[in-house]
Parts: sequence; C-alpha cells; structure tokens
Amino acid sequence: MSIPERLCALRSVMAEKGIDVYMIPTADFHQSEYVGDHFKAREYITGFDGSAGTAVITEEEAGLWTDGRYFLQAAKQLAGTTIELRKMGEPEVPTISEYLEKTLPEGGTLGFDGRVISVSEGQEYEAIVAGKHGKIQYQEDLIDAVWEDRPELSKEPAFALGLEYTGETTASKLERIRKEMKKYGADAHVLTTLDDICWTLNIRGNDVEYFPLVLSYAVITPDSMELYIDESKLSEALKAELAKDGICFHPYNDIYEDIKKFGGETTLLMDDERLNYALYKNISESVTRINKQNPEILFKAVKNEAEVANIRKAQIKDSVAHVRFMKWLKENVGKIRITEMSASDKLDEFREQMGNFLSPSFDPISAYGEHGAIVHYSSSPETNVELKKGGFLLTDTGAGFYEGSTDITRTYALGEVSQVMKDHFTLVAVSNLSLANAKFRKGSSGLTLDYLARRPFWERNLDYNHGTGHGVGYLLNIHEGPIGFRWKYRVGESWEFEKGMVITDEPGIYIEGSHGIRLENELLVCEGEKNEYGQFMYFDAITLIPFDLDAINPEMMTAEEKKLLNDYHEKVYETLCPYLEEEEREWLKKYTRQVM
Amino acid sequence: MSIPERLCALRSVMAEKGIDVYMIPTADFHQSEYVGDHFKAREYITGFDGSAGTAVITEEEAGLWTDGRYFLQAAKQLAGTTIELRKMGEPEVPTISEYLEKTLPEGGTLGFDGRVISVSEGQEYEAIVAGKHGKIQYQEDLIDAVWEDRPELSKEPAFALGLEYTGETTASKLERIRKEMKKYGADAHVLTTLDDICWTLNIRGNDVEYFPLVLSYAVITPDSMELYIDESKLSEALKAELAKDGICFHPYNDIYEDIKKFGGETTLLMDDERLNYALYKNISESVTRINKQNPEILFKAVKNEAEVANIRKAQIKDSVAHVRFMKWLKENVGKIRITEMSASDKLDEFREQMGNFLSPSFDPISAYGEHGAIVHYSSSPETNVELKKGGFLLTDTGAGFYEGSTDITRTYALGEVSQVMKDHFTLVAVSNLSLANAKFRKGSSGLTLDYLARRPFWERNLDYNHGTGHGVGYLLNIHEGPIGFRWKYRVGESWEFEKGMVITDEPGIYIEGSHGIRLENELLVCEGEKNEYGQFMYFDAITLIPFDLDAINPEMMTAEEKKLLNDYHEKVYETLCPYLEEEEREWLKKYTRQVM
Repeated sequence: MSIPERLCALRSVMAEKGIDVYMIPTADFHQSEYVGDHFKAREYITGFDGSAGTAVITEEEAGLWTDGRYFLQAAKQLAGTTIELRKMGEPEVPTISEYLEKTLPEGGTLGFDGRVISVSEGQEYEAIVAGKHGKIQYQEDLIDAVWEDRPELSKEPAFALGLEYTGETTASKLERIRKEMKKYGADAHVLTTLDDICWTLNIRGNDVEYFPLVLSYAVITPDSMELYIDESKLSEALKAELAKDGICFHPYNDIYEDIKKFGGETTLLMDDERLNYALYKNISESVTRINKQNPEILFKAVKNEAEVANIRKAQIKDSVAHVRFMKWLKENVGKIRITEMSASDKLDEFREQMGNFLSPSFDPISAYGEHGAIVHYSSSPETNVELKKGGFLLTDTGAGFYEGSTDITRTYALGEVSQVMKDHFTLVAVSNLSLANAKFRKGSSGLTLDYLARRPFWERNLDYNHGTGHGVGYLLNIHEGPIGFRWKYRVGESWEFEKGMVITDEPGIYIEGSHGIRLENELLVCEGEKNEYGQFMYFDAITLIPFDLDAINPEMMTAEEKKLLNDYHEKVYETLCPYLEEEEREWLKKYTRQVM
Repeated sequence: MSIPERLCALRSVMAEKGIDVYMIPTADFHQSEYVGDHFKAREYITGFDGSAGTAVITEEEAGLWTDGRYFLQAAKQLAGTTIELRKMGEPEVPTISEYLEKTLPEGGTLGFDGRVISVSEGQEYEAIVAGKHGKIQYQEDLIDAVWEDRPELSKEPAFALGLEYTGETTASKLERIRKEMKKYGADAHVLTTLDDICWTLNIRGNDVEYFPLVLSYAVITPDSMELYIDESKLSEALKAELAKDGICFHPYNDIYEDIKKFGGETTLLMDDERLNYALYKNISESVTRINKQNPEILFKAVKNEAEVANIRKAQIKDSVAHVRFMKWLKENVGKIRITEMSASDKLDEFREQMGNFLSPSFDPISAYGEHGAIVHYSSSPETNVELKKGGFLLTDTGAGFYEGSTDITRTYALGEVSQVMKDHFTLVAVSNLSLANAKFRKGSSGLTLDYLARRPFWERNLDYNHGTGHGVGYLLNIHEGPIGFRWKYRVGESWEFEKGMVITDEPGIYIEGSHGIRLENELLVCEGEKNEYGQFMYFDAITLIPFDLDAINPEMMTAEEKKLLNDYHEKVYETLCPYLEEEEREWLKKYTRQVM
C-alpha cells in the first residue's frame, strides 16, 4: 500500500471506532529511542524513517511533528504523501498540544495506543480532552488493524555481560536501588526502560535496532525483582544466575494485569516520564505514587572505574580504526571508487579488526557534500553517491565494543576544499576544543558550559540547530540522560556533572545544498583541585582522532585556540603511536603536526 | 536591651503563647528587599544588619541563616550574641526547612508573623508542621511585644513621576495588565509588591530605605484599581489624577478584611512568590487561584524608549561624577585625610552636582583594604578607616536620578599596589568585559552566558560567591527580576533576555583579610542581526568609567582581551568628553589610554 492508501485505511478504522484524532508517536512500550521493527508504526503510516517524530491524523489532515535534525529529511520523505511537515520549535508552528486543542471537536475522541505514550504526555492530552468534554481511547493500537505483514516482537536471545565489563554486580546495583526506594518509603519500584533494566541485571540482547537491549518490564521490591520477559530469550544458565539475585520470571505482557494487584497500602516509586500511559492507568488509584526520575538513571550515568577503564580502551580502538580509515580515505579518494556506503563499511571493517566488536552503536551517518547538511542523514542505495575531491565527507558513527559504546563524528576534506568550507571547519574545531577544555566548578551542568561551544558561531551570527552533546550509555542507549550540553533549560536534562560521566561534544555547521561539518568527541568528566571555592572539574577528551588539518585555517584562530588544537593533536599522536604500524605513525605525525 | 536580653524576652513570650520555634525573616508585608525601620525585626533581635537573613529561635537555640555575601559581616556582628551563624549553601549546613524538620517537636507549634512570609514559604512550613502533627501560629507578630520603642509605619508623602520619565501612562499600563488578566480569565489581580504598584501608578514615595516606594496593596479589576494606602501620603491633586484612571482609595490595612469578600465565583490572578501568607490565608478556599508571576514584573523589566533614553542620561551623569571622583581620589590620597565614609560622601557630592538627584539608590559600600573582601560591607563610624596608598578602595554605590537608578562598582588602586592585587584586578576586568561583549541568540538567559564571567576565575581555581548580575529597576527596587546572571538554574530568575532590559555585570574577587575587587557596569540588552538562525542580540555597556589602569597587568591579557579593554576605554573617553572640563579631559585621556 502507498502512504495515502495506508492513511485511508487508518481513517476508515478511526471512523468505525468513532475516533476523531489519532496519534502515532515514535516509541515502543518502553520509551526507547530506537525501536524494533514491530514498533515502527509511525514510519509505516508516514514513510518518514528518522528516529524522532509523531504523526497526528484526523479525517481531513495528517501532520508529522519532528525536530530540527530532521527538517530536510522529513520534507523529502513526506513529499507527495499528503502529510504536512510540522517543524517543531519554529515560530508559527503549533505544538502537538496546541494542534489538538484547535482540532479536536467538542465532545470528540482522541485515540492512541496507551502503551507507546508516556504518562506525562497522556496527562497533557487528558487535560486538553477534558476541556473539550471529549474522551480518550487508549486501549487499542489501530495500526495493527491496518498493517498486514507487521513484524512480530523480537525473539532474540539475551546474554550476560561479565563483571570485567560492568564493574558492579547485580546484587550491588539492587542494593543501591533499594536504598533509594527506602528513602521514599516505596514498597516497589516499577521499571519499564530497557536500558535501566539491562544495566541492573548486567544483561544485553538484540531486540531493538542498534542498542543491545532486551524487551522487558520489571518490578523491584525489597526482596525480589519480578522480571516480565519472553523466557525463551534466556538460557537456563543465565536464568539460574539471575535467580540467585532474587529475579523471578513472568511472561512479558503479564505486567499489565499484575500491576493491578497493588492495593491501597502500597507506595510505588516510578518515573512518569518513563512509564507508559496504559500501564500507569492500570495502577489502582488508591496506591501512593512517588514520581521521581528512576534512580538507575543517575547510577548508570556515573561510570565506575572498571567501566571508565574499558571506555578508554574502546575509544582508543575506535580512534585507531578512524586513523586507519582517514589515511585510507585520503590516499584513495579519486583513485578508486568510494561511495558514502562503501566508506561507512570500510570504517566498520577497521573497527572489526580491533576485536570485541558487537555492532554499530546507532544508525551510521556517512554523508558526502550537500548530504552533510542533513543532520541525521542516512545513506541508502537511492541516495548513495560517489565521493569526489573538493567536498567534505561527514561520518557520524559508533561502535558497540564489549569495552563500551562509542559515538564519534569526523568531517574529512577530500582533496582541496574551498576557503569558506575551511573557515567553517575551523569554526567547528574551535567550538569543539573550547568546550572540551572547560574548567568548571562542581554544580555546573551542560547549561553552564554550552556557551563555550556556541560562541564562535554566535559571534558571527551563525548557529547549529541541535544540542551540543549528550550522555553516552555503556552498550545501552547511545543518548543517555540526565546530562546534556544545551543553551536553554530543559527539565531533567540539565543535571550537574559528576566524576565518571561521559558526554559528547559535537558542534556543527550545516549549509543547505552545500556542505555540513560536525566534529564529535566524547569527554570524560574528571575532578581537579578542591579548595575553599569548591571542587573544580574538567573534561578529558577520550576520543583521539585528528581534526583534519587540510581544512583548518590557522589565520582564523587566536594563539590560545591554536594551542588547544596543537595540544589535542599531540595527545592523539602520543596515545595512538603504540597501536600503529610505522607507516601509519608517519602519516599520523603529519596529520597531527603543530599549526602556527 | 542587649541581644541576649531581647532573645530572653522573646523566649518568654514564646513560652506564654506555647510557641516552640519562632521565625523572623527580613521582610515587610510586601516581600521588599530593603524595609522601613518599623520592619527591622530581624535586625532588632539579632544585631545583624545585612539586607538578607532569617532568624530562627527555639527555647535553646538561636540561628541566623544568611547567604555568601554576608558570611564575614554576620560572623562579626553575631559574635557574643549566642546566635549561631548558618551559612546558606555550604555543605553540612541545614536549610531552614531541614532545621525545622529536625527541631520542631512532635505536636509542636511553629510561629511567625504571616504578613512577612511568602505563600510558598508558608506552604513549605505547613508541610513540615503537618508531618509533625503540629500547628502554625501566624497571626501575631511576637517582636511587637518585645520591642518597646519600635518605630511607627512611615508617613512620608508620595509623588507623581512624570510621563517624560516613565514613558507610559497608568491607563496604558493597566490596559496591558488587564489583557494578561483576561488571558487567565481572572476577575481580579491582587498585587502587594511595592515596585509593581508604584510602576503601575507612576508614583514614588519614601517609605522604604533607599528605594522610593510607597507602602500599599492593590486589587486590579477589569474596571477599577482598589488601592490600600495611608491616604495622608497623597496630595489632593495626586488623588484626583489617580482617580481619573479608576483608582479607588482604602485604608492600608483594610485589604485583609476586603480580600475575604471574594466569593466562589471569582478567579484571582496572584503571585504566590510575592504574596504574604496571612493575606493568602484570608482568601476564601472557594476562589479559583491562578498562581503566575505578576505580569508587571516582565512589563517593567523591559524598559521603554523613554526609559532607555533617560537611563542612558543617568548613566552618563553618574559616569561623569565617578570620573571626577576618581581624579580627586588619585590626586588627593595621601595628601589630605580621606576615609571610607568621607570618600563615599564626596562621590555623592559629585553626583548631586549633576542635578535631578533624589538619593542613593541603595546602601552604599565604600570599603578600603581588607574591608573590600566583605561583599556587602557597610562603613560605619566604628569601622571607618583612613585611605592609604598601597590599598584598593572599592565603591559599590548608586544614585536615584529622576532619569533612573544606577548601580555601579569601581575599585581604585591608591598609589602602587602589589603584583597579586594587579593580577586579581586584571582578572576581574577581563571577566567583566568578556561578559559585556557576549553575542547571543534570543532565547538566551543569564544562565546561558554566565560562564563568560566565571571563566577567567575557574581556569585558575578561583571564584566569587555571588551572582554575576541582576536586573535594575527604574527608581524602584535596585535588584529587579526576572533576569540575572547565574551559573546554576533558579526558578523565576532565568528569564530570556529581551531588548530594553537592563542588567548589571559585576564579577569580583575577595581575599579575606587582604583585599576585595569588584567592577560593575550596567548593560542594556540590544537586538542585532536577525537571520535564518534567529534573532541575535548583544549588550551595550552603558556605564562609562575607566577600569583603573594603575591596576591592570597587560601581560595577563590575550590580544583579544586587550582589544575589549581598549575599545571600552575609547568609548568612555568619546562619550564623556563633552561633559568634562579641559583638565578633566586630559586626565581621562591618560586613564583611558590604550594598553599594548
């Protein structure tokens, strides 16, 4: 079926059920960022395959809301579908709530699958619907009726991640979680986020695209952990191991009934931002609900010593792979046929050679020329182009090693690039390095420091339409809360930095129709001097790959900025040398030379 | 009576009334920052006369909570009083709520004068008291029983501020306020903050120390404005003028009874942060309350064209006065006897010569040598010292001109100062100039930009224990919301910058027992280029007084930082020249010379 035909089918189901407005967000039952094939309802109904977006369908209109990363991509993919692109954050564009407010008729019915909507979203919609004296129908997934060959839920096996990688036993993690529960007087803690569950259990799997997660729900009590999971995913050995820590197994979907059993004397610790609306509605009204950010979120954001040591190893592996890729690219472009997709494959080949490689850690971006301006471009056979001299190749890719996940962006000049491209590249490099070299007091968040990255742009009336960085999970979600570099306050994303956190530093510039540049390193939060003013902190850039000197214009840089670049390149060379062949070392020496 | 005797007297009243814990904040009935003499209950009971602090008294303990600005001053003033200094924000120091939680006995009674506590504070205490199954007694001011010669409420007259200064009529202001009321469906808007009332009515008075405010409450309805005020403050002419805009007059205290008359059908717009608890409790529970920041706050923070033109004039006047003062100081120190207090008087003398001067705009700081390290030092006959060569004089003072209020800090080197003092001075100058020269996108708040000021300090493991800047009122409060430069998020203080806002830029460094340095300019928020990325903005430094070159160490500055200083000094010279005598111009030329 074409997109208009799918919309037509959905609208007839909506009419049948008496639903005036139907919403399809991008989510599974666990608020995951990437979702398994079974959950790609929004993509099925709109054709837009970016990682974020919500479709809202009425009898007469169809709209897709997505953010700045996807404006160009969505505009292309929605062309001819009758679906209107709603650019989030742009003036004149209503939010979804404002749109519902305007569109839902008096006494009308709003529909969505309550399992793919968070509690706070659901409550926001309840308020709107109440104002219209309407109702919400959340107990049915209408896409199911339309989507004939819908993929089944994943059956992939789970596996244990050893203590040498996790650095902390499940018993110890549960002890810390239970301490938090006790603080709030909670009898149970409901957990539906897959990364929180996998982190707690030290298991991984393959149920979600790119992220090695396992579809499951959990209820943690003072003595047990009730795990709702397709048991066929677990080997007998793994089950026995988990059982030792008091884990009990239940069928995946049973939680919706079991949750109803909590009675009036119970206090539940749960995170409304991370719980689905349908599950929430099944909890008895008499239960006392403590709505707090899942304690696991802060726990797992602060990497322990074993994790930090592993992450440093993973970053060195990926840096070596990148250096080999960069050398290969520079030496072969224009000589052999290289495309966006073959370049991406080549990079993964170098990564696999480093060993202990599981899979890419997210949907890789390999974007040549004007494709680089599409922030979350994904090369496909239809868009794949050959790399030529005179353009930039932007790769934003990552690896899942057993030693941790990486998320790295580099932009490479192929042959000689124009002066404006060099100037833009230099701006991005200065921005990245300025932020990476921040010194700050404990208590600072990404909000305190983001200006360091924006400054080179804002001083020239330029900007980039995305955050400057995000926390990184350890073989979990690649975008991991509760930290981030942003210039505007957002609840729950501006937590104070703590020693052991890992965050990306990824400013960029995007010139539509011409070129895109982004440089992304991962930074480890470290503690410096402590004195009467407080605890001072700094970042250690753990990604060690040259910023392409073929695209650097030293004349745009202050003496201090040149020093930052030279210091970084010196560290790159010194750290990677032991892992490289003589010829590679010579090459790296040249690409990490000092600029004057 | 000595402080211990006053505490003893208070404790016997507490015992009589069955009150276990009694709180005395620093406030009048209007949440004012400075208060009239009648309201100085906290100062009376503790002896600490800083502008911020809360005393909490139990049968056995007495504590004073105050912030970092006052740690040194409070420690001195509390010595020997039996009152313990509780340094807010320091680790291990409980917040007031945590202290109450710990100290209030089961079933105990917490007492305070409900008129000097905000609603949100009151509600916080209610929750604590509820947890203890105790009660709150808020209807009596116990200090009244103890304080024998307590000053009466002010009887000072009010006066109209002309349209040439305010730039907007009361009718127009009321129209804007009523539009906001309509947005929330409010039948009435209760207003108790004196600056909001004076701004709306274009009146000023003399009821509060330093700030030209008028003790009053108001209730704005769609057709009238009920003003609760001691009518003897108003001339017949002023009353007639106000009556034309629908203002009706009532005795000051009648609001507590009148507010009870609002019935179940009423919707009230009010600001819980800015309403006193006693008034709030008098509002019928059946009334619908819309708790929003007073709309007047944002209105008055954005200065209109007439106000901006006036403020620029006021700043030039005060800058000329400062230049004359600086010249006089440099030429006379060591030759004639000058003290902290006589220097401060001299500066005000130069200000008065500029004309249209009402009064100092806040408690002036004139601090020599180690006194400079006491952030809110106030010189008195007991502490007053003679100025000598080899030290810094720090003046943080302001003027209320009809053309607006100023808030300016300069630090002057008297004779030759030490290298470390010069290095510290240079740091502060670089910090001030870096922030003042920020370019930013609309949507930024003080939180986005504060790092610019902190950076020179944090890079050297140094800091200052106060915010970097605050909004400035126009003959109203000198600290005016809702903007501020801070490095940590605080609700209600991190509003986006808008064209026409005025904010101070005042980093500093404080070395206990040695010296203190602060440099404070006022910045006007301006709009720059608007393009596809958004509206870009910048600051215009409207305070134009040299940063003392006798204390600048150019070797610590980058080329870019020297340019900022030189550009500022060039602007100072060019702007002030027309107002100066030939000899003054020559002198200023030297003190605004370019550094290399």
